[in-house]
Amino acid sequence: MTTESRQLPMTVPMPGLPDRVTIYEVGPRDGLQNEPTAVPVEVKAEFVRRLLDAGLDTVELTSFVPQRWVPQLGDAEELLDLLGPLGTGRQRPVLVPNERGLDRALDKGVNAVAVFASATETFARKNLNRSVGESLEMFAPVVRRALDGGAWVRAYVSMCFGDPWEGPVPVGQVVDVCSHLMDLGCDQLSIGDTIGVGTPGHVVRLVTALDDAGIGPDQVAVHFHDTYGQALANTLTALQHGVRVVDAATGGLGGCPYARSATGNLATEDLVWALDGMGVETGVDLDALVSTSTWMAEQLGRPAPSRVVRALAGG
Amino acid sequence: MTTESRQLPMTVPMPGLPDRVTIYEVGPRDGLQNEPTAVPVEVKAEFVRRLLDAGLDTVELTSFVPQRWVPQLGDAEELLDLLGPLGTGRQRPVLVPNERGLDRALDKGVNAVAVFASATETFARKNLNRSVGESLEMFAPVVRRALDGGAWVRAYVSMCFGDPWEGPVPVGQVVDVCSHLMDLGCDQLSIGDTIGVGTPGHVVRLVTALDDAGIGPDQVAVHFHDTYGQALANTLTALQHGVRVVDAATGGLGGCPYARSATGNLATEDLVWALDGMGVETGVDLDALVSTSTWMAEQLGRPAPSRVVRALAGG
Repeated sequence: MTTESRQLPMTVPMPGLPDRVTIYEVGPRDGLQNEPTAVPVEVKAEFVRRLLDAGLDTVELTSFVPQRWVPQLGDAEELLDLLGPLGTGRQRPVLVPNERGLDRALDKGVNAVAVFASATETFARKNLNRSVGESLEMFAPVVRRALDGGAWVRAYVSMCFGDPWEGPVPVGQVVDVCSHLMDLGCDQLSIGDTIGVGTPGHVVRLVTALDDAGIGPDQVAVHFHDTYGQALANTLTALQHGVRVVDAATGGLGGCPYARSATGNLATEDLVWALDGMGVETGVDLDALVSTSTWMAEQLGRPAPSRVVRALAGG
Repeated sequence: MTTESRQLPMTVPMPGLPDRVTIYEVGPRDGLQNEPTAVPVEVKAEFVRRLLDAGLDTVELTSFVPQRWVPQLGDAEELLDLLGPLGTGRQRPVLVPNERGLDRALDKGVNAVAVFASATETFARKNLNRSVGESLEMFAPVVRRALDGGAWVRAYVSMCFGDPWEGPVPVGQVVDVCSHLMDLGCDQLSIGDTIGVGTPGHVVRLVTALDDAGIGPDQVAVHFHDTYGQALANTLTALQHGVRVVDAATGGLGGCPYARSATGNLATEDLVWALDGMGVETGVDLDALVSTSTWMAEQLGRPAPSRVVRALAGG
C-alpha cells in the first residue's frame, strides 16, 4: 500500500460559486485564545509569518483584551513589535474589546480593528458583562474613533444561530443587532455560529433577512464552528448566496473561552480543499498551510482537528 | 458554565431539498470491516438491533466474504442466526463478493444483496484481483441469480472520484461501469468517493452525467468518506440534484481494508443533524443514535469520529 500517492483536490467547477473568495484567517486570535496555555510570542509571530507565506492575505493577529481576561493573548504589543511592518495594514486586523483596547491598538499603528458583539443577552452578559444594548453603546465610540483614525472596522456578531443558554436565536433579533452595528459605520459584519448548531437552511434565511434589511452579502462574512460537523456545508451555502468572505482557522483550532460548547473553527485547510476542488481562487497554497498546521500542532502538543491536515500529514 | 443546555438542531427548511431521505446505514458492514480486531458477533447483533430501534429502516448487515479476506466479518451466518427475523427483508442487504457469497446469503434467507465494483482498474486489481471487465463478468451471474431469486440488488461502485494510485477518475469511465451494472439489472447504484477527495462540483458533474446516460438520481445512492472533511457538503449537493438515498455509518466508523487513505464514512449522526436542521425527514431518533455510537465506542475502545457524537456525548 506504500504506492498510494498523496492526494490533491481535483478541480471541477461548481455552478453558482464566485471566482474568488477571501479567507479571513482567525487562527492566531480565535484559535490561540482558547488554548489551555499561552503560546510563546515568538511562536505566534512565526505562525503569522507562515500563514502569510502560505498566501493568506487577511490574518487577524491578536486581541487587545486585558491580560486578566484572556491571558493567552496578553502579549499583543510584543507580537506586533516582533512582526514589524508585517503586522499592520488593513489586512491585519486586531480585536479590540473597548476603547482602552482601541487605544492600545492605535498606539501600535494598527489600522484595522474588530469589535465582538453578541446577538443574545445571555452571552452578552457572560462575555461582555453587560446587556446587548449596553455593549452596542460601548462599541459606538470605539467604532467612531477607529473610523476617524482611518481604520477599517469589522464587527463580529456571535450566537447568531443558537445560544447555549437561550436555545434557537430568532433571525429578527440577529438582524437588529447587525443593523445597529452597521449604523455605527462598521465596514463588515462577521455572523458567527459560535456553537456550531446551524444548518444550511438557517444560513440562507439569515443572509436573506440581512439583505432585506439593507445589509447585502458583500458586507457580510460568515464564521462557522464545526462542533456538529456543519461548518463547511454552511459556508458553501453562504457562498452560493453572495457572501465572499469566510472566517477560518488554520488547523481547525479554536473555540470560545466563555462557552464550553463552542469547539473548533472551520479548518482553513478543509475550506481550501473544497474551494480548490471547485476552482474558486483563494491565493492559498494548501501544502504550505498543512505544513504550518503540522508545525503548530507540534508547538501545541496535540494533533490539528482539521481532517485535511490529518489525512495529508499522515500520508 | 454548567448551565449550558444540551443542543438539538433547530429546524429551518432549505429550498431545493426533498421532504424525506433514506439513510442506508453501512456501519455494521463498512464500519466494522475495517476494525483492527473482530467484534464479537453478539455485539454486532446488538449494534444492529440498536440501529433499528433508533429508526434506521435500511441497515446493511454484513458481508458474505471469505473469512480469510476479511476476518472481521467471518461470522455472517452466526450474525443472521442471532438476528432471526430482524436480519432478513429487502431493507437488510448483505454484501456478496461473488456467487459463493450469494449462495451463502441465499441459504440464510437473505433477499437483498449488494455487489462491490470498482470504477478503476488499479483498485479492481487490488480489491477484486481482476480487471474491471472481469469483475463485471463475475457479477453478471450473481446479479441475475439474485434477481431470479426475488432479491433486491445494489451495486457499489468505488473510486468514482479519485483513486489513490491513478489520481482523478474520468466521469465517463465511472458512467461506463455504472451503465454496465445497471444493464445487468441492478436496482440501485451506490457511487462511492472511497478516498474522500471529491468536492461538490464533481458531485454535480457525475450525477448529471449518469442522468444523461439514463441512470436517474432515483436509482443512485451516494457514499462519501470524510477523509478531507467534504462528506456532508457533497451529500447535501447530491440531495439538491435529485438523489434520495445516502450511505452513512453511525459514529463515522469505517474505511477500506484495501486502501490506506480511505478513512471514516460520513457519520450518520452528522447527516441526521443536518437533515433534522432542514426539516428533512429520516425517521431517525438522533439521541438514540448517539447513545448507540457511545455504546459502540466503548466496545471498540476508542471515541467515535462523529462530531455530533463527540459534542453530545461529552455534554
